[in-house]
Amino acid sequence: LIVDRRRNEGSDTGGGEHPAAGDAFPRPGSSDLGLGGGAEFDLIRRFYGGGAGASEVEEGVRVGAGDDAAVVGGEGIVLSVDLSLEGVHFRREWLDPREIGRRAAVAALSDLAAMAARPIGVLVSLAATPEDAALMAVEIMGGVRAALGEVGGVLLGGDLTRAPAGIVLDVVAVGEAPRPLLRRGASAGDEIWVTGSLGGAAIAVANLLRGETPDPEARERYAAPNARIAEAFWLAARGIPTAMIDLSDGLAGDASHIARASGVAMVLESSLLPVHAAVLRVLGAGDEAARLAMGGGEDYEICFTAPPGAVEPHLTEFLATFSLPLTRLGWVEEGAGVHVLDGRGKRSSLDRGGFQHFG
Amino acid sequence: LIVDRRRNEGSDTGGGEHPAAGDAFPRPGSSDLGLGGGAEFDLIRRFYGGGAGASEVEEGVRVGAGDDAAVVGGEGIVLSVDLSLEGVHFRREWLDPREIGRRAAVAALSDLAAMAARPIGVLVSLAATPEDAALMAVEIMGGVRAALGEVGGVLLGGDLTRAPAGIVLDVVAVGEAPRPLLRRGASAGDEIWVTGSLGGAAIAVANLLRGETPDPEARERYAAPNARIAEAFWLAARGIPTAMIDLSDGLAGDASHIARASGVAMVLESSLLPVHAAVLRVLGAGDEAARLAMGGGEDYEICFTAPPGAVEPHLTEFLATFSLPLTRLGWVEEGAGVHVLDGRGKRSSLDRGGFQHFG
Repeated sequence: LIVDRRRNEGSDTGGGEHPAAGDAFPRPGSSDLGLGGGAEFDLIRRFYGGGAGASEVEEGVRVGAGDDAAVVGGEGIVLSVDLSLEGVHFRREWLDPREIGRRAAVAALSDLAAMAARPIGVLVSLAATPEDAALMAVEIMGGVRAALGEVGGVLLGGDLTRAPAGIVLDVVAVGEAPRPLLRRGASAGDEIWVTGSLGGAAIAVANLLRGETPDPEARERYAAPNARIAEAFWLAARGIPTAMIDLSDGLAGDASHIARASGVAMVLESSLLPVHAAVLRVLGAGDEAARLAMGGGEDYEICFTAPPGAVEPHLTEFLATFSLPLTRLGWVEEGAGVHVLDGRGKRSSLDRGGFQHFG
Repeated sequence: LIVDRRRNEGSDTGGGEHPAAGDAFPRPGSSDLGLGGGAEFDLIRRFYGGGAGASEVEEGVRVGAGDDAAVVGGEGIVLSVDLSLEGVHFRREWLDPREIGRRAAVAALSDLAAMAARPIGVLVSLAATPEDAALMAVEIMGGVRAALGEVGGVLLGGDLTRAPAGIVLDVVAVGEAPRPLLRRGASAGDEIWVTGSLGGAAIAVANLLRGETPDPEARERYAAPNARIAEAFWLAARGIPTAMIDLSDGLAGDASHIARASGVAMVLESSLLPVHAAVLRVLGAGDEAARLAMGGGEDYEICFTAPPGAVEPHLTEFLATFSLPLTRLGWVEEGAGVHVLDGRGKRSSLDRGGFQHFG
């Protein structure tokens, strides 16, 4: 959810909607509550309460229809929080302490990328048993600082406490974006683009859950993702994206947030999906690989929409600058929801059940 | 810890110190790691790393010597995070779900009070089992919203996730303070003042830990504390405090933060302590009651320093406005640390061992 509380409201990003809180507060997917999409969204909506939401709008608080981060203050201070729990988001057999910290920070910083915000820093809440704290806390925080060092930003503070068991790591990403890129700017006719490749993290997790050793490149995608801060900034500086989101929950689900926020339909061509090489090595090209690339989360790539022809003049320079592909994988049209065009030209609509299927 | 990253640095609040992170990142006291003061502070210091800290200062990041919250942006956006874990900060037999949520939010918002910041809102990370989420999540978030309603501010967003067990609640308080009140402004000769009364929460927790039913007023102090936002704002608007802190860890420990940040000694007269009535009812007046009032945490009152005579002209109006006493309980002098003058005129220094004794 975004509550944009800047005093000087720009007309370009709309406002005044009732808080459609449900679709961005939680992170559906592997880490969700297991309540099922609808029930979970309903739960979140109840967090905001009917009356309070209405009065907030009356008081001039601009509320966006679900976005990657909150924006406060006239300068556009961007805030997002991302919780990583042992046994839910990671297992200590899967990641070393430095990876645990770096990954948790990247997950939070990725929300800043989605808004084209410049990182200022993070606050970190860390809970551990005394034994775990003595063994791992410094390395975990070293991983957090490594993530900060890569994108710019400092450790702003935090809260350290004892945990009865397991590691709790909550990272608050703080950035600034005088003109944050929201989810709501996509128009019919726009193209849909994505950075990097998809499905690598998901296949690594699938392997790990089965006790198998994942492909090293796939493991790297899960254990050491990157927040696409510089890439997002580069694109935004050229005025290219009309709407943007980071892929934490999977392309299908995250694209639906743009569709809903922008009031459009997103059409994805499965044959254009930039499936991660490790997925192709393990599964070959086919429905199963496309399913992982479409539904697998935690790649932390960026998906954005752009006017027709706006990206192509910049493709070579982007690739040269970031050594990262940019792939067009569909278009925006009037309507609602996310639709997939498969290799045989068959078009299907991904309703909420579809997300779960793809998730 | 505060990292004050405002571009226009005021000379009034100093700057340029090496990050003395240790004393504010953690919350020593009942919720600490059990590592002992020194070890815990050393651990936190290592979170920041030698090299990174130095380079941050070089880059013009102003780093304060430990404060209640971080301040970012030219407008003074104030950020603090406070983690509440079931089994550490509360038990579900002690608090109902609404109290759990409200209390966690008050703990975070209290850091805004300490800086005389106006609340904008909170982000909340909430983790629970699916069963707990279904039973309690809406009420917990209702408690968060109740706390917000009392001081002004909205639910800005958050992260909802599944927990393997127990409830995890991390609240990020977001406020604004163009001129935040820091811990470092106390001067020799200043008086030391505190709002409200002390020790009520601590005696309730002591009872609860022994399976006893606490005094209802004492329980209220633990289960339903208040963030002294309006009080802090009122005092700051009149230019009264020179340094301020909220009492989350106990007067002795929190006063030491002002002492250290300001480079002064804090002298507290135990006979002047505003001991909570429930503590007096249970323990009578005496050393044990003074010990609880001095060392017991989680009262969330505000302690501040003020020039001699600055408070007295406002005492009646403060009491009339807030129905809350303001008590002078000591003075600032040249030196270091926290010193206690007992009823027999004996003065003793509270070193770190002293804090633990009082904690």
